[in-house]
Amino acid sequence: MLMNNTIDELKKALTSQNVLCEIQERIEYTKDASYITGQLPDVVVFVETIEQVQEVVRIANKSKLPIICRGAGTNTVGSCITEHGGIILNFSKMNKILEINRENMTARVQPGVVVGELQKSVEKLGLYYPPDPSNLAVSTIGGSIAQNSAGARTFKYGSTKDYVIDMLVVTASGEILRTGSNTIKNATGYNLGSLFIGSEGTLGIVVEATLKLIAKPQSSKVIMAYFDTLDDAVNAVTGIIEHKISPATIDFMDKNAIVTAENFKPAGLLTDKEAVLIIEVDGYAIEEQKDTVISVLKDYGASAIKYSANDEEAEKIWQTRRCSMNACKSLKPHVTTDDVIVPRENLPKLVKGIQKICDNYKIIVCMVGHVGDGSVHPQIPIDLNNMDEYERYKLAKSEIYDLTLKLGGTLSGEHGIGIEKRGEISKFVSENALNYMREIKKVFDPNNILNPYKIF
Amino acid sequence: MLMNNTIDELKKALTSQNVLCEIQERIEYTKDASYITGQLPDVVVFVETIEQVQEVVRIANKSKLPIICRGAGTNTVGSCITEHGGIILNFSKMNKILEINRENMTARVQPGVVVGELQKSVEKLGLYYPPDPSNLAVSTIGGSIAQNSAGARTFKYGSTKDYVIDMLVVTASGEILRTGSNTIKNATGYNLGSLFIGSEGTLGIVVEATLKLIAKPQSSKVIMAYFDTLDDAVNAVTGIIEHKISPATIDFMDKNAIVTAENFKPAGLLTDKEAVLIIEVDGYAIEEQKDTVISVLKDYGASAIKYSANDEEAEKIWQTRRCSMNACKSLKPHVTTDDVIVPRENLPKLVKGIQKICDNYKIIVCMVGHVGDGSVHPQIPIDLNNMDEYERYKLAKSEIYDLTLKLGGTLSGEHGIGIEKRGEISKFVSENALNYMREIKKVFDPNNILNPYKIF
Repeated sequence: MLMNNTIDELKKALTSQNVLCEIQERIEYTKDASYITGQLPDVVVFVETIEQVQEVVRIANKSKLPIICRGAGTNTVGSCITEHGGIILNFSKMNKILEINRENMTARVQPGVVVGELQKSVEKLGLYYPPDPSNLAVSTIGGSIAQNSAGARTFKYGSTKDYVIDMLVVTASGEILRTGSNTIKNATGYNLGSLFIGSEGTLGIVVEATLKLIAKPQSSKVIMAYFDTLDDAVNAVTGIIEHKISPATIDFMDKNAIVTAENFKPAGLLTDKEAVLIIEVDGYAIEEQKDTVISVLKDYGASAIKYSANDEEAEKIWQTRRCSMNACKSLKPHVTTDDVIVPRENLPKLVKGIQKICDNYKIIVCMVGHVGDGSVHPQIPIDLNNMDEYERYKLAKSEIYDLTLKLGGTLSGEHGIGIEKRGEISKFVSENALNYMREIKKVFDPNNILNPYKIF
Repeated sequence: MLMNNTIDELKKALTSQNVLCEIQERIEYTKDASYITGQLPDVVVFVETIEQVQEVVRIANKSKLPIICRGAGTNTVGSCITEHGGIILNFSKMNKILEINRENMTARVQPGVVVGELQKSVEKLGLYYPPDPSNLAVSTIGGSIAQNSAGARTFKYGSTKDYVIDMLVVTASGEILRTGSNTIKNATGYNLGSLFIGSEGTLGIVVEATLKLIAKPQSSKVIMAYFDTLDDAVNAVTGIIEHKISPATIDFMDKNAIVTAENFKPAGLLTDKEAVLIIEVDGYAIEEQKDTVISVLKDYGASAIKYSANDEEAEKIWQTRRCSMNACKSLKPHVTTDDVIVPRENLPKLVKGIQKICDNYKIIVCMVGHVGDGSVHPQIPIDLNNMDEYERYKLAKSEIYDLTLKLGGTLSGEHGIGIEKRGEISKFVSENALNYMREIKKVFDPNNILNPYKIF
């Protein structure tokens, strides 16, 4: 429970306008992009400087108040809502790109910078920040770091962890910790930075990040190809690799996702096909790469292959894929997404298995994902107020996780664990690994004030 | 001090032939590829199975004996020798590639697998393991993981940490810990694996690793270009990036390195030039990439540009670069290497500064390195038995580290800290970061038996 003098201290440190105390102001912070509703936070604060973050931590420490960081609130697992009151620390005003260094190919940014804005800024200079979570138009670098976000381009370019070379972190005691160096290689002591990436705000508060950039690919082209079976689609990916092409993205939509997207916003999709692959090749010799990919796709039974003649057409194809969540919303009052991942060879079994599980429980599921990574996002339109449906949903989810485990996969590839999946983590991570994680949590946050009880 | 019953227990667990006790057998293990001579280990053991590693740890724990892991012994910072007796755990018999999975594009390997052997094996299947430490003909995956090894291809492809997706680690208590998953993305709990990579065997004993592979580049070509100033060479790299080419490697040799290599093994190098760049482009449209790079190099003042017509010619160019350490040995009885790294824009200042420091102390230095990464290896031919020369060497080294710090760099990009550099680490890593590292060390190795006192 929050004391009045805590509010006064916060207002003194941050100015009154950056401290939200009224219920109607705080209530929107009980939600993120998951289906979970959290507790009402005691207070929501906007920070504008690193010193202010330190001050908030010092104030929170006095009363052992939880601190939950938040950027755009696009988290899908309940990781930026609170279950125990406390302070929501909003980074949306710490949203500056502090430096883009062309010679070093780095960008230094505040946590509230929107991923898509960063990408546009660096691309103007011929540089490239590859991680592309599908909500990049709003989601922030801070959130990307918290969840180790990835996106469609992981197959070729990796995930957020592969691009963060240095960070400033405010620790649970309010100190500033530097985690790395302004160099693209570092073998100087333990890799502390990588611990924070994907730790969902439970180990420290990232207040600045230095990101590695790469050369912007010379050109790109998006290819769409339909398949009668997902097995053929996955085999085609192996065929493409054998031709020494590393596509930037190899995404897929299953039949339900195709049908739902087409009904939502007609784009001439072929609704009788089992799966569509969306492959983006980039770099040099783009026509040769495109032709080789198309030839391989045909060898593996693809039909109705089309490709983008220009950037607008490419964007149109991607819109079809990215509208999938919104399309699902047209079917039911709510939609939830998930994020399971298996070794690629097991992807068809996972997708077919999920379909069967959902059929059994009379749950609609549309699947999209990243074939290259073995990553599936089962998007489930649902009425969360229908308790019977919700019960069936929970049972289906549990079986989906069991199947993922059986197929050698893991619980999250890019969304994180948060509240939603923490009950399942011990199936995937051994007890001794979880114990080491808990010990590490104690080292960095002995009073358990940083996003407490998330992940495990 | 080792008790006789410990030897008996080790022989029972590992068979007599895998337990070396005689002084003449142990003495070679007082050296690695650094200039440091360690203490005589009490015993050297060869392990063949994970269970044997666990057994060694259990036996060591009884008497709190240090365990120092060793692959090929190519470590350059004294990280695989002992200062406190104990057990050298030799992985050279655990050298099997357990699985190469083409569909998932992964390899599962034992720690004693030689990096170059793995590369050849996966390339036969059209796959690629990019990290290429220059000693890859002998150095092992275990050592690569221990030091987070990188090599010439880091600029485009990253370092070892970017390719290890899962590991089995024997902990200090003898348990088996799994650190990741068999998937190329993972956001399930803290990234424990990344803590072990680059921890120089101080946190756990890696007994198996699953590595991400990529598609083998279609083709490659090596370009050599001379410059009158290193500034021009570094500026040319920025120019290449502006043309949207991401070379696999952008290495350099300074004038001394060129002259020393040419005298050692004449290859027609231009000994009057300040620097030579060795650039490898790979992938599609190799001729177009090569022509673009050459045109940019000319714009920035390069001369005597040549390129490889085929793989043999490419290999010949690389041999010139890789023979650098051996060439230095022709000048003095010993040669030491180092590994400092700065933001790329400061590379010319670092190289010129190191030259000046070494001139002041009358120390010869040949510099090679990775321009793309801002990484410099000052190779110093020296007579380590000449105490006066050694004193000047130590003073020069200290000034080189100070300069690296001043230029915003860090102490090691890819070789690690070990014994040699631990006295310098507190200049580069803040006290609170070092304290967190020490706390993490305590979590994983409370009795301090795993490679004790290395790094810090």
